[in-house]
Amino acid sequence: MAKPHKSLPRPFLALVFIGLSLNLARAQTDPLPSWNDTAPKKSIIAFVQAVTKEGGPDFVPVADRIAAFDNDGTLWVESPVYTQVAFAFDRVKQLAPQHPEWKKEQPFEGILDGDMKAVAASGEKGLFQVIIATSTGMTSAQFEKTVSDWLAQTHDKKFNHLYTELIYQPMLELLAYLRSNGFKTFIVSGGEVGFMRPWTENAYGIPPDQVVGSTMKTQLQMQDGTPVIMRLPQISFVDDGPGKPVGIDTFIGQRPIAAFGNSDGDQQMLEWTAAGPGARFMLLVHHTDAEREYAYDRTSSVGKLDKALDEAAAKGWTVVSMKDDWKKIFAFQ
Amino acid sequence: MAKPHKSLPRPFLALVFIGLSLNLARAQTDPLPSWNDTAPKKSIIAFVQAVTKEGGPDFVPVADRIAAFDNDGTLWVESPVYTQVAFAFDRVKQLAPQHPEWKKEQPFEGILDGDMKAVAASGEKGLFQVIIATSTGMTSAQFEKTVSDWLAQTHDKKFNHLYTELIYQPMLELLAYLRSNGFKTFIVSGGEVGFMRPWTENAYGIPPDQVVGSTMKTQLQMQDGTPVIMRLPQISFVDDGPGKPVGIDTFIGQRPIAAFGNSDGDQQMLEWTAAGPGARFMLLVHHTDAEREYAYDRTSSVGKLDKALDEAAAKGWTVVSMKDDWKKIFAFQ
Repeated sequence: MAKPHKSLPRPFLALVFIGLSLNLARAQTDPLPSWNDTAPKKSIIAFVQAVTKEGGPDFVPVADRIAAFDNDGTLWVESPVYTQVAFAFDRVKQLAPQHPEWKKEQPFEGILDGDMKAVAASGEKGLFQVIIATSTGMTSAQFEKTVSDWLAQTHDKKFNHLYTELIYQPMLELLAYLRSNGFKTFIVSGGEVGFMRPWTENAYGIPPDQVVGSTMKTQLQMQDGTPVIMRLPQISFVDDGPGKPVGIDTFIGQRPIAAFGNSDGDQQMLEWTAAGPGARFMLLVHHTDAEREYAYDRTSSVGKLDKALDEAAAKGWTVVSMKDDWKKIFAFQ
Repeated sequence: MAKPHKSLPRPFLALVFIGLSLNLARAQTDPLPSWNDTAPKKSIIAFVQAVTKEGGPDFVPVADRIAAFDNDGTLWVESPVYTQVAFAFDRVKQLAPQHPEWKKEQPFEGILDGDMKAVAASGEKGLFQVIIATSTGMTSAQFEKTVSDWLAQTHDKKFNHLYTELIYQPMLELLAYLRSNGFKTFIVSGGEVGFMRPWTENAYGIPPDQVVGSTMKTQLQMQDGTPVIMRLPQISFVDDGPGKPVGIDTFIGQRPIAAFGNSDGDQQMLEWTAAGPGARFMLLVHHTDAEREYAYDRTSSVGKLDKALDEAAAKGWTVVSMKDDWKKIFAFQ
């Protein structure tokens, strides 16, 4: 007996059914499971849906989906001291036997004696001195190995975890969510590129060439007939504050449509991002969770968040309260 | 009647058949149709097959498949003058009414009078002076528009084509072939990034952030309450010769496994590429075709190829003779 011609052939029905199931499964998979269903998560998803909706008023072609992320305090822990500073201080202790003069020279003396007041008194100039003394005068390959070895061995004091485990799980999900929607994700950090590139691919899925940061002056030299890149004792570019839009323009060559930061050092990057045409997304991570991480903002010596917090309120930028908006902070929690 | 249990069900056989057909189609599609079947093409294909063969002795993971291409003379025409220089000379003529002093100042005077001997006599210093005078003191957005407008209107004298049409078809195929095999393709050029980034994506499929080049000093400034990147009258980095490995290290942060150039300015980039471990590929484009393009090498004022040509012979780097190894040079030919 012939089937009524209106009914669809069974294999076709099966395909429709499979299709529906896949769509349901997709809709049910939360791309940001470590985020509470509060305003920041909703604004992120609304933005991504708007810029990826073909034919929609806010559609942005894949080539222009550039997202810039600060690193310290935005993707990983920066308190009580920036990880690169912890590294430099450890290097001072390690190299001290070869530098007897450091015993009587600040800020080296303070670092060796554990006198953080003396170290702080030397200011940014002292800090740059320490960074130059501990991370130049060697090849880029030697420095990469030094950084990798230190990160593989050193646990932080509060959590007793490797620094590369002190990365924010909700931000990892956000990076993956943006990439799965055609975004190219960049780091734009005050940290030095040579300190970040050895590990950002494993930690964040961000390859070395998508890491923008401060740079040391370098030079091509020959060592035993082999070319090497020598790190010279001079900071050539500081990728912080007004330096961040400059770093973006120099390294990326395109204005981001989304920018993520956590401090006043990110203010100009967010302003630069906001000043472009079309849909824009600016977000600040606010450290509000003294229990699960740290709580600090307007008066902090690291990641000071003051002017940018006011600007976020005035301009409607998204502000994430780590305490209220994140279900978990680290994967291990 | 039941089928013999050994035979495969028909839908499965159909799938196998489709699979075989697809494989045959793939094998029959030549990835480099504009290349003659001479040694360079064979060496390229052998290298790509070796580094992509999982489990093979030369296998390279996708993350490390970095390829660096010089631009002028390697991807597009550089003779009789580098395109950026042609642009700067046109700008001098255009801006001359606002600079009466140029009438009595070399090399501007020579450019305005068509006295190329006087221009040449001013050397590299004079050239940098012209580039600074014609491409700074404006925002990055203004410069981008100036470059794009010029490229959209200006035809070269020999071929009467837009400069963005004077790109080498065999190299386009090579870029696409490498990318389809998991390579990330970068430009590493002596040209200025601001001059290249407006058009490299359309011309080569290379996005702005994968363009490494010489840079101008820039600064974040406010114009009527809007942030802009101002191009200052100072060259901050020259990405040529020994600068190329430095540019690679600073911008890309990874050593390429394959590098492509055409002049002594690429020598250190090829040496830097060759000095890494594992399989390596170094190629020089030799301009040998006076009829279809240009013929020049050891004594040329652009793209001088002398020491690098000797080193290629000594070290077995691949040398492409444009006349003998390329079926066509431009898509329009």
